[in-house]
Amino acid sequence: MSALHIIAPQSGAAFEMNKGDILTVIDPLGQQVSDMVLFNRDDIKEKISSGKTMDFEETILLTKGHFLWSNRSQKMMEIMEDSNGRNDFLLAPCSPETFKIMYNNPGYHPSCLENLNKNLIGYGIELDGIPTAFNIFMNVHFDTTGQLKVLPPTSKPGDLIRFKAEMDLIVGLTACSAEDSNGGTFKPIHFLVTNASFDKHI
Amino acid sequence: MSALHIIAPQSGAAFEMNKGDILTVIDPLGQQVSDMVLFNRDDIKEKISSGKTMDFEETILLTKGHFLWSNRSQKMMEIMEDSNGRNDFLLAPCSPETFKIMYNNPGYHPSCLENLNKNLIGYGIELDGIPTAFNIFMNVHFDTTGQLKVLPPTSKPGDLIRFKAEMDLIVGLTACSAEDSNGGTFKPIHFLVTNASFDKHI
Repeated sequence: MSALHIIAPQSGAAFEMNKGDILTVIDPLGQQVSDMVLFNRDDIKEKISSGKTMDFEETILLTKGHFLWSNRSQKMMEIMEDSNGRNDFLLAPCSPETFKIMYNNPGYHPSCLENLNKNLIGYGIELDGIPTAFNIFMNVHFDTTGQLKVLPPTSKPGDLIRFKAEMDLIVGLTACSAEDSNGGTFKPIHFLVTNASFDKHI
Repeated sequence: MSALHIIAPQSGAAFEMNKGDILTVIDPLGQQVSDMVLFNRDDIKEKISSGKTMDFEETILLTKGHFLWSNRSQKMMEIMEDSNGRNDFLLAPCSPETFKIMYNNPGYHPSCLENLNKNLIGYGIELDGIPTAFNIFMNVHFDTTGQLKVLPPTSKPGDLIRFKAEMDLIVGLTACSAEDSNGGTFKPIHFLVTNASFDKHI
């Protein structure tokens, strides 16, 4: 019903989902982050919002049972399953400037923002229209002082997270390009979209 | 050089700043939140970004010495002074849906999103273009489980925060309309914009 798709290291993908479809994102080798952004397929000005999601779900850490919300206060996805359980929704996708400013690397470096932009531009979604992503498997630690530390993901080979689409969507998804977020090495991400009627039978 | 402006309870304002200008936001009665959004005056697609700010500043809690960054990884403001010291950058502005979903109030309720929209529309900034705000004086508690609790502000009468503009800006500012964020009562917010040359002499 649906092929397994492979996102090569430091690259990305974009695809459509129908309401009710299930997206499974798999970390095949472990310790690899995947940034995900969501847009309403019928109106791309409606998009995933970290601020609305943390407000309605009353938590910084989103996992099984939580919803991802839009800037228009609509549910976009439900997290159905999350075998690792640690994701981030605080930090923006790594961008060319991330590597210049935080890594002191003035040369070219692949980034999630560039990879989202490359794949989403065909849907009419511009660079400035890409919001803070839901960072699957990203392990950002914080304490009550608010200080943030990006640690290697805790995800093991084969860990997966499953989402149900709550509306028709355009999805952008990456295999993250930032050294610190991925334990220093860049691995692929696998994903699978199954439709609602199929999913009932597995 | 600049008048003191008063934002009435549950309302908002929008205004321009030149690079180098100083904005002072005052809580005259205490325990009152003010949501602030920023746009590049020369290109409103560049705007304040919670994800980029928390990434570059490496903290959830922003105060004196920190910068507020844009979605294009540019500094928009520096926090020069912060007499209270507790602000929030996690939660989206309260919106009509906040009161329907979180307060179970189906009727009309003023909101920061409506008040930002009303005041910013004259600058060509649409509702969907309003990002997660920097929530001055907002007291959102979290622990390492990620769970969020909105508590009354710790700000006392006369507490203030001062920002320096790092680029030419359009600013949206409110006196927040949500019961839980403001200790149950709605108070005004005062603000003042002084220009860089004036500020050197005070």
